[in-house]
Amino acid sequence: MTCSEFDLIRHFFTEQPVQRADVPLGIGDDAALLAPPAGSSLVVSVDTLIAGVHFPLDTAARAVGHKALAVNLSDLAAMGAEPAWATLALTLPTADMSWLTGFTQGFFDLASEHDVQLVGGDTTRGPLSITVQITGFVPQGQALMRSGAQPGDGVFFTGTVGDAGLGLRLYQHRVGANSDAMTNLIQRLEFPVPRIAVGLALRGRASSAIDVSDGLAADLAHVLTASGVGADIRIDQLPLSLAYRSLAPEEDWQAAVSAGDDYELCFTLPAGQAAALAGLDCACTRIGEISASPGLRWRDANAQQLTLSNAGFDHFTAGKQP
Amino acid sequence: MTCSEFDLIRHFFTEQPVQRADVPLGIGDDAALLAPPAGSSLVVSVDTLIAGVHFPLDTAARAVGHKALAVNLSDLAAMGAEPAWATLALTLPTADMSWLTGFTQGFFDLASEHDVQLVGGDTTRGPLSITVQITGFVPQGQALMRSGAQPGDGVFFTGTVGDAGLGLRLYQHRVGANSDAMTNLIQRLEFPVPRIAVGLALRGRASSAIDVSDGLAADLAHVLTASGVGADIRIDQLPLSLAYRSLAPEEDWQAAVSAGDDYELCFTLPAGQAAALAGLDCACTRIGEISASPGLRWRDANAQQLTLSNAGFDHFTAGKQP
Repeated sequence: MTCSEFDLIRHFFTEQPVQRADVPLGIGDDAALLAPPAGSSLVVSVDTLIAGVHFPLDTAARAVGHKALAVNLSDLAAMGAEPAWATLALTLPTADMSWLTGFTQGFFDLASEHDVQLVGGDTTRGPLSITVQITGFVPQGQALMRSGAQPGDGVFFTGTVGDAGLGLRLYQHRVGANSDAMTNLIQRLEFPVPRIAVGLALRGRASSAIDVSDGLAADLAHVLTASGVGADIRIDQLPLSLAYRSLAPEEDWQAAVSAGDDYELCFTLPAGQAAALAGLDCACTRIGEISASPGLRWRDANAQQLTLSNAGFDHFTAGKQP
Repeated sequence: MTCSEFDLIRHFFTEQPVQRADVPLGIGDDAALLAPPAGSSLVVSVDTLIAGVHFPLDTAARAVGHKALAVNLSDLAAMGAEPAWATLALTLPTADMSWLTGFTQGFFDLASEHDVQLVGGDTTRGPLSITVQITGFVPQGQALMRSGAQPGDGVFFTGTVGDAGLGLRLYQHRVGANSDAMTNLIQRLEFPVPRIAVGLALRGRASSAIDVSDGLAADLAHVLTASGVGADIRIDQLPLSLAYRSLAPEEDWQAAVSAGDDYELCFTLPAGQAAALAGLDCACTRIGEISASPGLRWRDANAQQLTLSNAGFDHFTAGKQP
C-alpha cells in the first residue's frame, strides 16, 4: 500500500473520538484555531518519550500511546487544570500500520476519558519518539504551583509510590514474571493514571503540588526549593502497594522514593484543609509535614533520621536505558 | 562539570530575551500559565526537525535553532497570525554545551525578532531532534485558511522558489562551493525567513494561504483540494533567484516547484485586492490564476501545458536523507 505521510495522518488522526466546541478548526490546515474560555488561564505542558529511554523498546504500542498523553495530563493535574487540547509530534522509523493502530487506541482511549481533542500534529521519520503538548484551563489565580508550601502544612501523596520503578526493574531482569503482583506493577508502569480529579479538588485548597515523574525524593525537593521550606517525611507512612511489598527487597523505601514514572501527585495542604480530600476515588496519604528548616529529611516511626543514598532519576547523569 | 537535565534547562532556557506580559508563569513549574487575549482565536502549530532527515547532520547548531522556530513561525504566517508563545522539546545525544550555545543563539535571535517567549520545554536524551510548538493570535474570523480560493483569484508567491532545495542538492554533492551564489542558497536553506508581516497584511484580503514547506507543487495542491478549485501556473512567471538561475541546470523549473524547505507563502488574492501588497518589504509575485476546472496545470509563456514528472517531498515515500 502507498502510505504517504499525509495518508497516515488522515487515516489515524482525523477520525478521532472527541470534537470540542472550542476548536473551530482542528487538524488539516497550516495550524489549528482554538477559542480559549474567558476568565481562565491556559495551562501548557510538553513532554517527550524516547523509545529505549522512557519506555522499553518492546513496550506495546497501546501502552506507549496511553503513556505519551498520560504524562502530560499528569502535569495538568499538578496545576489543578482541566484538560482540553493536545498536539502530537510523532517520529516513526517506518509507517507501521499495526503499531499505529495500537498507539492511537491507547492515545484516544485516554483522550476520550478526559475530553481532550487532538488539534494538531506532525509525523516524521526517524528513531521512535513521541512529543505531546497539552493545554488546559484553570480559573485565573487558582492554579496550583510549587512555590506555596508553608511550615505546618501536611505533605500528601496520591495512590502508591514506587510501583512503576519496581515494575521496570523486575521487567528488565525478567524477575517475578507471571505473578499477579508483577502484572500490577507493569500495569502501573505502562498505564499511569493521571490524577486530574484530585488536581481539580485541590484548587484553592492545596498550598503546592507537583507531579512525581522523577521520584518522590527529587520532585518533592523541587517543591521545597521553590517554596523556601523543608520537610520531614515518615518512611513508615509511605503508601506502598501490596504488589510492591510482595516483590520488593525488604525495607526498600529508598528505591520507592527514588524511582521515576509514578505520575502521582505530591501536594501540601494547610491544617484544616484535609477535609477537601473526602469523596475522592483516589487514596491520598499524609506522609509528612513541611518545616521551616530547609532540607528534605527522611524519618522512621521513631523519628530517627535516615540517609537516602541515591538521588532521583536524571536523563543525562543517571543514564537509565531500559 | 555536572550537567544534569535540570542544570541544562536552567542555564540555557531560563535567561531568555523575551518576557511577555501575557505569561504569568513561564518555565519552572509543572506547566506554564498563559493569559490569552480577549476576542482572538489561538493559532497553534507543531513541527519536528530530525537530524539527518530535515537538516544535514553537520548543520551548524545556530542554523538548527533558527530553523526549528522558523518553520513554525511560517505556519503562523500562513494563517495571518501574530506569534506569541513557544515550547521546545529538545532531544540530544549528549549534553554538548557548545552545541547548546549555538542552538539557543539561533533560536532566541529569531524569537526576539518576533516577540516570542519560550514558555515551556522538555530536554531528553536520544537521537537529535527538535519539536517546537508555536501559539499565536488572530482576531476572530480573520484567519487565512486553505479553503477559500475562488476562480479568478490570482495565485501569488513570496520571495523566490526552489532556493533551499537547490542549496541542499549542491551541498550534498559538494558542488558550487565557495561561490556567492552557493552561499546564498545555503543561507536560504539554513535560515528561512518566516513571512509574518505578509501574513498580517493579508488578513481579511487573501482568500487562501499556505506555507510552502514540501514544495510549491505539493502545497498548492492542498489549497486546490481544500478549496475545490484548480489552477493554471505560468512557469515563466516563477520567481527564481539570481543564485538559482546561475547554479541550476537549464530550465529546471520542475526542481524549483518540487523541492521542499522554501518556507515561503503561496496565497490567493481576489481581483482588486492586489493593492494590499504595496509597501511590503518582501516581493510577492503573481504566478498564475485559480480556475473552476480542477487540477494543477503548469503552462509556459505560450500557455502550452507542461508535465511535472516528480511530486513534492513526502517523508515516508521519498526518503529524503541528506
